[in-house]
Amino acid sequence: MKALVYLGSNRKSLEDRPKPALAAPTDAIVKMTRTTICGTDLHILKGDVPTCMPGRILGHEGVGVVDSVGAGVTAFKVGDPVLISCVSACGKCVNCRRQMYSHCIAGGWILGNSIDGTQAEFVRIPHADMSLYPIPPGADEEALVMLSDILPTALECGVLNGRVQPGSAVAIVGSGPIGLAALLTAKFYSPAELIMIDLDEGRLAVAKRFGATATINSGDGDAAAAAAVMKLTEQRGVDTAIEAVGVPATFELCQQIIAAGGTIANIGVHGTKVDLHLESLWDRNISITTRLVDTVSTPMLLKTLCSRQLDPRPLITHRFKLDRVLEAYETFANATTTHALKVLIET
Amino acid sequence: MKALVYLGSNRKSLEDRPKPALAAPTDAIVKMTRTTICGTDLHILKGDVPTCMPGRILGHEGVGVVDSVGAGVTAFKVGDPVLISCVSACGKCVNCRRQMYSHCIAGGWILGNSIDGTQAEFVRIPHADMSLYPIPPGADEEALVMLSDILPTALECGVLNGRVQPGSAVAIVGSGPIGLAALLTAKFYSPAELIMIDLDEGRLAVAKRFGATATINSGDGDAAAAAAVMKLTEQRGVDTAIEAVGVPATFELCQQIIAAGGTIANIGVHGTKVDLHLESLWDRNISITTRLVDTVSTPMLLKTLCSRQLDPRPLITHRFKLDRVLEAYETFANATTTHALKVLIET
Amino acid sequence: MKALVYLGSNRKSLEDRPKPALAAPTDAIVKMTRTTICGTDLHILKGDVPTCMPGRILGHEGVGVVDSVGAGVTAFKVGDPVLISCVSACGKCVNCRRQMYSHCIAGGWILGNSIDGTQAEFVRIPHADMSLYPIPPGADEEALVMLSDILPTALECGVLNGRVQPGSAVAIVGSGPIGLAALLTAKFYSPAELIMIDLDEGRLAVAKRFGATATINSGDGDAAAAAAVMKLTEQRGVDTAIEAVGVPATFELCQQIIAAGGTIANIGVHGTKVDLHLESLWDRNISITTRLVDTVSTPMLLKTLCSRQLDPRPLITHRFKLDRVLEAYETFANATTTHALKVLIET
Amino acid sequence: MKALVYLGSNRKSLEDRPKPALAAPTDAIVKMTRTTICGTDLHILKGDVPTCMPGRILGHEGVGVVDSVGAGVTAFKVGDPVLISCVSACGKCVNCRRQMYSHCIAGGWILGNSIDGTQAEFVRIPHADMSLYPIPPGADEEALVMLSDILPTALECGVLNGRVQPGSAVAIVGSGPIGLAALLTAKFYSPAELIMIDLDEGRLAVAKRFGATATINSGDGDAAAAAAVMKLTEQRGVDTAIEAVGVPATFELCQQIIAAGGTIANIGVHGTKVDLHLESLWDRNISITTRLVDTVSTPMLLKTLCSRQLDPRPLITHRFKLDRVLEAYETFANATTTHALKVLIET
Repeated sequence: MKALVYLGSNRKSLEDRPKPALAAPTDAIVKMTRTTICGTDLHILKGDVPTCMPGRILGHEGVGVVDSVGAGVTAFKVGDPVLISCVSACGKCVNCRRQMYSHCIAGGWILGNSIDGTQAEFVRIPHADMSLYPIPPGADEEALVMLSDILPTALECGVLNGRVQPGSAVAIVGSGPIGLAALLTAKFYSPAELIMIDLDEGRLAVAKRFGATATINSGDGDAAAAAAVMKLTEQRGVDTAIEAVGVPATFELCQQIIAAGGTIANIGVHGTKVDLHLESLWDRNISITTRLVDTVSTPMLLKTLCSRQLDPRPLITHRFKLDRVLEAYETFANATTTHALKVLIET
Repeated sequence: MKALVYLGSNRKSLEDRPKPALAAPTDAIVKMTRTTICGTDLHILKGDVPTCMPGRILGHEGVGVVDSVGAGVTAFKVGDPVLISCVSACGKCVNCRRQMYSHCIAGGWILGNSIDGTQAEFVRIPHADMSLYPIPPGADEEALVMLSDILPTALECGVLNGRVQPGSAVAIVGSGPIGLAALLTAKFYSPAELIMIDLDEGRLAVAKRFGATATINSGDGDAAAAAAVMKLTEQRGVDTAIEAVGVPATFELCQQIIAAGGTIANIGVHGTKVDLHLESLWDRNISITTRLVDTVSTPMLLKTLCSRQLDPRPLITHRFKLDRVLEAYETFANATTTHALKVLIET
Repeated sequence: MKALVYLGSNRKSLEDRPKPALAAPTDAIVKMTRTTICGTDLHILKGDVPTCMPGRILGHEGVGVVDSVGAGVTAFKVGDPVLISCVSACGKCVNCRRQMYSHCIAGGWILGNSIDGTQAEFVRIPHADMSLYPIPPGADEEALVMLSDILPTALECGVLNGRVQPGSAVAIVGSGPIGLAALLTAKFYSPAELIMIDLDEGRLAVAKRFGATATINSGDGDAAAAAAVMKLTEQRGVDTAIEAVGVPATFELCQQIIAAGGTIANIGVHGTKVDLHLESLWDRNISITTRLVDTVSTPMLLKTLCSRQLDPRPLITHRFKLDRVLEAYETFANATTTHALKVLIET
Repeated sequence: MKALVYLGSNRKSLEDRPKPALAAPTDAIVKMTRTTICGTDLHILKGDVPTCMPGRILGHEGVGVVDSVGAGVTAFKVGDPVLISCVSACGKCVNCRRQMYSHCIAGGWILGNSIDGTQAEFVRIPHADMSLYPIPPGADEEALVMLSDILPTALECGVLNGRVQPGSAVAIVGSGPIGLAALLTAKFYSPAELIMIDLDEGRLAVAKRFGATATINSGDGDAAAAAAVMKLTEQRGVDTAIEAVGVPATFELCQQIIAAGGTIANIGVHGTKVDLHLESLWDRNISITTRLVDTVSTPMLLKTLCSRQLDPRPLITHRFKLDRVLEAYETFANATTTHALKVLIET
């Protein structure tokens, strides 16, 4: 089968690989129909993810059709259309029992990382009963691809951890795909202010279309951006600051704009330590949260999708066939010029 | 001044009464500009509320302008436009400290009940700092009247107690003003199903316009209504059932449609005991909640109003001047024929 | 093997039955070492539990040693000492994913009910990975038998649902084994008042030894008992009332003693409907909860047991060998004269 | 009257000052009977608290008797014995309404900071109704002094923010008075592990007497201390890490020992920024909280004190008369040699 393979730092190719086989009774093999590329895949290509070794098929998102199941799989049968979760969960370990699937002792984020992933014609899914979801009849399959990772990540790490409430003031630092997904899911809770902050005017314009109540270009420096947020909130700051970039400067900005009693919810993947200004925050009654997505919100997201409370389709800007996956990577990696958000790959 | 006075069972009149005076340093006198009539006022007129004695000026809702303040009032001054909360709260007692203002030892629901109320040209507001809210510049004063009682009641007793969540299934039994207010505020949380149940097709048509995803006429009996809800929810029942009527039959219906793990949130004012079917519910992991509105959600509602997450104006169907308040009562009491929801009274 | 078999209304016998065999890859067979009798077993014998058919081996509690495992069992191997949960959970269905194992679509309370149970030399445990717990080294196995059902039931249905807090006032209506287990686990949260109510002076004396701050004999009628609670709480009533009997009179008492803002947490198995006094409770801001134990608290209970925060051994009053199980039933059923709490059966 | 006055960096004296007078209708004057010294008073003396100007009477803790009240005070009268809260709260502002009294717009921590404090014969208490508590009959007044600040601070900032649960693993970094108070109040929730970490063997010995399950001397370096915690928790780390010192090294240690899904609850007063290791924590599902005490838990603490769930008396190691307050400061400041925890000052 065709598969996109990581070959080590900055190298990848579309290769012919053997179709995967069942390795455990709880496995399923899924014939992919659609997948996508995640910012994390770019991190892997830069060599930043040591658990991902050269030779690995990348990808941890997508939808497909069940091709075969192990003897222990009870919830799915051959031919079932399925959504693949980016997190594999055994459902039984100490962490799964507290619904922290991201830290499943026998799973977690392993797809396209420590085992082969979804940017291929077929993929092996461990713990299939817990890690696949049936596709509801009539659901838009393209939209569903956004439920593998980006939407539960934005909702769980950003919106739920950030305790967004009706009438509250929310700032999202970073208006890329994940920041925009946070914007879409923050709207579930009817905040009064949804302020999007980014360096790219194009992305801010998209944010406005997605429902941002205000946008701030941080190109004039963080001090100016912080001042703009404070002005919008009558000098109170925001109740929720969602960090959706993953560098020290954006985390710094969150600390400058958070109101007393507020929450900084980190989504960004950070490569270095940051400064935490406890000298000014120790008495401000704030919370800071970190999280790898647990995908516990997938059932909720499926319901909001089917009831049209959520429409993730505007996140999809480009479409490619699998044999043009390298072009898809180019498009996604050069978002400033291509204006790509999520690129869909039909397999 | 003119005032609508309760004269004992089924009797009321528009009378001339002396303008109220400050009685405590924490009092304010408010010149009313707009008030309205509540279902509870009709209960009083039937003689169902023993704390309300003949001679009482009715009304516990409205907006106005501060006319005078006691020496202990620090948050308001003469001339301030204010929203009046239906619940008066000292802010200091054991119950206020846990934000259960409805059970304030020196307050609670006393306006138009144990002290004179708002259906008059002036009203005395005890504990003014805690019981009035400044009207935000530019706010629609008619819409604001809906924040005195009906919207916080629907939100707190129905939606918040009922733990409405994105993607959840909600049924509201009763599509009168309070049921419709529950519908409006349930939408803050993006439920997937918002099923409205009533005997009156007219009210169900209004519910549909307000955003109900389905309506059920319970005129064919509760068994048929329950069956219809179960069908809509694939035999699971609803996660939240909001009782917005206050009679045994509607509470019974809530018990029939509640899903395992769900919540029955009672808003209705009940005059008799009801059957609780613990023989079938003891192992169903459900919660039942009761509540007199605390108006702790008023700041949240003000923010959602100002940010246009909430538009209560469609609740207002009729407008009267104070000298036609008896006609306003007639209109409100005969909602089946007049199709009245809330009637606004300009004072 | 020997097994205690239900033969229909009021009939049971100790019989020879074939040793159970694995029926699914996720099954385990456990050689029992200790089991016990639950109040629910007495309900079954009265014919009150229609899902339990004649011919059924009773029992849903106990500890033992793994005798064999299906191919899909990964967490246990032959020879492992295990605690058996009274609730079997697949871990994968919609209800298990929200940790409502009691309503597992492929499990729930089935042991000794719709499938054969633990009052036997061997038992088949479905969904073994989710329904068994490893016994920590050095743990007291007799004490552990109390973690199969009675302690998680008391903790989850009574204490957690009842939101017991440091400094709060708690009344437990019913001082039988389950009421006493609620007392033991309520102490985890350091309430100020722990009032035990029962008709039996002997059980109240036990309650006092277990740490009750006050005991009330309800033999003089519920009005007198309610008055005694109100006096102890300076007329406020209790923050948490735990119903641990399951008849209308005790649920009525809970309604009389609950403070505004409080919670009535039902544990009792009710056979008939009860009166709910919404005419006086509709504005009292109370919650009423029901629950079949989910056993989600078993990991927490194991930790409190190992750290000596919990000592369930005083709940065990009698010990029998399996061949004297009929005598054990007699002893347990006649607790008034035998003073039995939990009777341990060595198998 | 006699009063301990801050005179600027490192200078203080016992002076004669005029008795304070009522300045607002909501004020009370309290004749002090007992006060104490807080670590924050030492911070002020070092010049670290710019809001506290030379000439200020220090102190924000204590008990006394009401000497006079303003016209707006309704909850207290002359002669009432009262507990003074370290935080003054108007009860009415936007922050008080969400029970964040620490950020009261007209109050907060002002006593002995921006207004004169309690280390004197008399003190003026603003917003007396919200900032004083009646002393329950029979309560130990010395013990009560610990409820002004140290116990609510430890409970709210450490234990409640840290979500200590039955069976959980807790580490408290710093075994000074505030760390020991966190230990005392963590026990309300029956954790399985209560690990105390400090450099001072004497303080660790006290912690052991107070109920620590393990103690670790961090004198061998943070790496060794972290390793010791990991060993005690079978390499999982702790569910709650309470920072009770306020320097970068102790916050660093908390980051090293926190388990996935855990909470770092900061109590310490920090003077400089710290490193936050988002590069390793971004995917660990942790929370970090900061808080200035709100004293919302004072009613709970009073109940636990009266019901003997809490005994703070062992925190008091030394007693002085007010005219020996300078000696009291010496004793408190040199805790390593004096073994002082809290020093009581009779006024």
